[in-house]
Amino acid sequence: MNVTVHGRTRPCRTVTFDRAHNAVRLVEQRLLPHTFKIVATRHFQETAAAIRDMVVRGAGAIGATAAYGLAQGALAFRGHDLQKFRRHVDTVYQTLKAARPTAVDPANAMNGVRATMLAGKTVAERQALALAAAEEFADEDVRHCEAIGRHGVKLIRNGMKILTHCNAGWLAFVDIGSATAPIYAAQAQGKKFHVFCDETRPRSQGATLTAWELAQQGISHQVIADNAAGHLMQRGEIDLVIVGSDRTLGRTGEVTNKIGTYTKAVLAKRHGIPFYAAIPLSTIDWQLKSGFDIPIEERHESEVLGAWGAISTPRSALSTLRSRATAEDGRPPRSARRAYVRVANPTSGARNPGFDVTPPDLITGIITPAGIFKPKELWKRRHALGYAN
Amino acid sequence: MNVTVHGRTRPCRTVTFDRAHNAVRLVEQRLLPHTFKIVATRHFQETAAAIRDMVVRGAGAIGATAAYGLAQGALAFRGHDLQKFRRHVDTVYQTLKAARPTAVDPANAMNGVRATMLAGKTVAERQALALAAAEEFADEDVRHCEAIGRHGVKLIRNGMKILTHCNAGWLAFVDIGSATAPIYAAQAQGKKFHVFCDETRPRSQGATLTAWELAQQGISHQVIADNAAGHLMQRGEIDLVIVGSDRTLGRTGEVTNKIGTYTKAVLAKRHGIPFYAAIPLSTIDWQLKSGFDIPIEERHESEVLGAWGAISTPRSALSTLRSRATAEDGRPPRSARRAYVRVANPTSGARNPGFDVTPPDLITGIITPAGIFKPKELWKRRHALGYAN
Repeated sequence: MNVTVHGRTRPCRTVTFDRAHNAVRLVEQRLLPHTFKIVATRHFQETAAAIRDMVVRGAGAIGATAAYGLAQGALAFRGHDLQKFRRHVDTVYQTLKAARPTAVDPANAMNGVRATMLAGKTVAERQALALAAAEEFADEDVRHCEAIGRHGVKLIRNGMKILTHCNAGWLAFVDIGSATAPIYAAQAQGKKFHVFCDETRPRSQGATLTAWELAQQGISHQVIADNAAGHLMQRGEIDLVIVGSDRTLGRTGEVTNKIGTYTKAVLAKRHGIPFYAAIPLSTIDWQLKSGFDIPIEERHESEVLGAWGAISTPRSALSTLRSRATAEDGRPPRSARRAYVRVANPTSGARNPGFDVTPPDLITGIITPAGIFKPKELWKRRHALGYAN
Repeated sequence: MNVTVHGRTRPCRTVTFDRAHNAVRLVEQRLLPHTFKIVATRHFQETAAAIRDMVVRGAGAIGATAAYGLAQGALAFRGHDLQKFRRHVDTVYQTLKAARPTAVDPANAMNGVRATMLAGKTVAERQALALAAAEEFADEDVRHCEAIGRHGVKLIRNGMKILTHCNAGWLAFVDIGSATAPIYAAQAQGKKFHVFCDETRPRSQGATLTAWELAQQGISHQVIADNAAGHLMQRGEIDLVIVGSDRTLGRTGEVTNKIGTYTKAVLAKRHGIPFYAAIPLSTIDWQLKSGFDIPIEERHESEVLGAWGAISTPRSALSTLRSRATAEDGRPPRSARRAYVRVANPTSGARNPGFDVTPPDLITGIITPAGIFKPKELWKRRHALGYAN
């Protein structure tokens, strides 16, 4: 998508590869929305650190980063010994995989790159194939998002007000995004509409990342408190809800997504508002038989008990602020102007489930690169949707 | 309720009167939950400023503050001239009323005090009657909350998990509170239970005030993001919801309360969880015929776009921080350690409706000082509930 820096607008992907410097180039997402910056990792271990430290996040984006990281590591190998090369690539693979041990995307992406490499007979051939495979993975991620947009755009009519939750935008993929794909496609078709971005507490990805994305694209939008969606629906101010999904159960049509998604689906049902999840096929889980079997990650309570944001601080206080902010909850501050404030009562604790599960009766449709399906249709269409028995 | 400061526990009301110094004593609520402090206003104009600047907030609390403020102003009058006294009291009344022009509670409370004063034949008699009437107003507010607690406590069983939204606690009244009254009564009866406090974005009164109250009382509780309630209900972790109300329509049973209340009611209905509003009779509106006629205040977007909290800041930076924090959104910082962080994308705006309306089909019952009623029963019972035709 487009990014405007110092008045100049240019196209930008979340993850790209710089062949000349054997570097992976990433949008530094921890600085957003207050600072836009591209960082380059020049060694596969730096790339792994970027995944681990969440410079880059989102299924498609970390998949592509790992794929590029594997190619980067392979390309850094000097010599012709295939045995040594294989061992080196193994080390690279394990290092990148360990960066986010619970995520499936980096491993899936790297498995594809590794399989392609095997066709090469020499180290040089395998190096070239690795990079080509990584580029193909990234391009395919973009094509899938484009396809989601082509199907989903039909849902958006002129004058609509659309609610989104969290960030399933281009920052979470290589480009375009899943939940945002129909929105960007509608803009390209000249449709007029307005987007409400749920703040998405506790990590506020809607207020920070989605709002930033839409602002960069010049799309009419406003942030709302997560509490406000029900009221807006009641007063007829929301016509359509589109969210992403971290994991969709192919057998049941249940959608796992950021905490609060389920609440919006319940509200949409009450008001007869269509509720869609936009998903790449790679996030369909064909194995699990019930959403209640999905383990819901309980995240650190500091997220609920406070907030990160930008503060107007005199320069002289910055270095001290930085060390104090680190002490506050253990997370390093992302920039000199970023700070954590403790909002809640200092002697209170919190519960912080990171995700919830939306049952199929609340979901109007699931927008995939292969078309829009009723949640219960996924299993029937499983062979077209990438189910590997 | 009880407050513990420096290890010493003592009972405390939100608003009291200090006869020796002709001062109104208030819990400085803008410093909570990070600092507990009682401030004394020694002149009726200071008392009006405390209402205006939200040192004190909440229907019952500002009513009692205005009642005490009127007595305070009357008591400050020197002389025996009834004519001059009347004019002076009029000035005091208008000054206090203008402090929160849209709130009905200060005027209602002061009207009662003024009516009582009229029985006095001399300035001294009227002064004494004014103070007695103000004390009676405060005591009655407490008795009403106690009565809400007596009725509501029957809903709380051992082992229950209770969800609350926003703050309708003792800080919003003279003591005890409305939504919290059944909770404090249940604790007094030795019942064991757990309370989830909705954070209540954008102003976070649940995370700050309700959590502070429950912590002071030693009641088991946790703060949750507003997004988490649906998930917790789905997993069977919430048994009962109790909220307050700013305005309940006596003719329809609709409950106006802090934004997000409606969402929780919709969720509770889906899960078959009882949903109660606890209200003092003074908040029943017997005139309006539809909740859609209630104007919903649109508050400043800075509330949604950022958050106020405590920051660990080096002392040297405090004074600068203070002036910068003021610049950030025009609100004065509440203490040296309080700061506002901008969370959202800096070029995005927000919608910020302050309240929503919950229809009667979602409300299990309304807990009043006169008993628990179905929403539709209010009108039938209107003569017992203070309806003045």
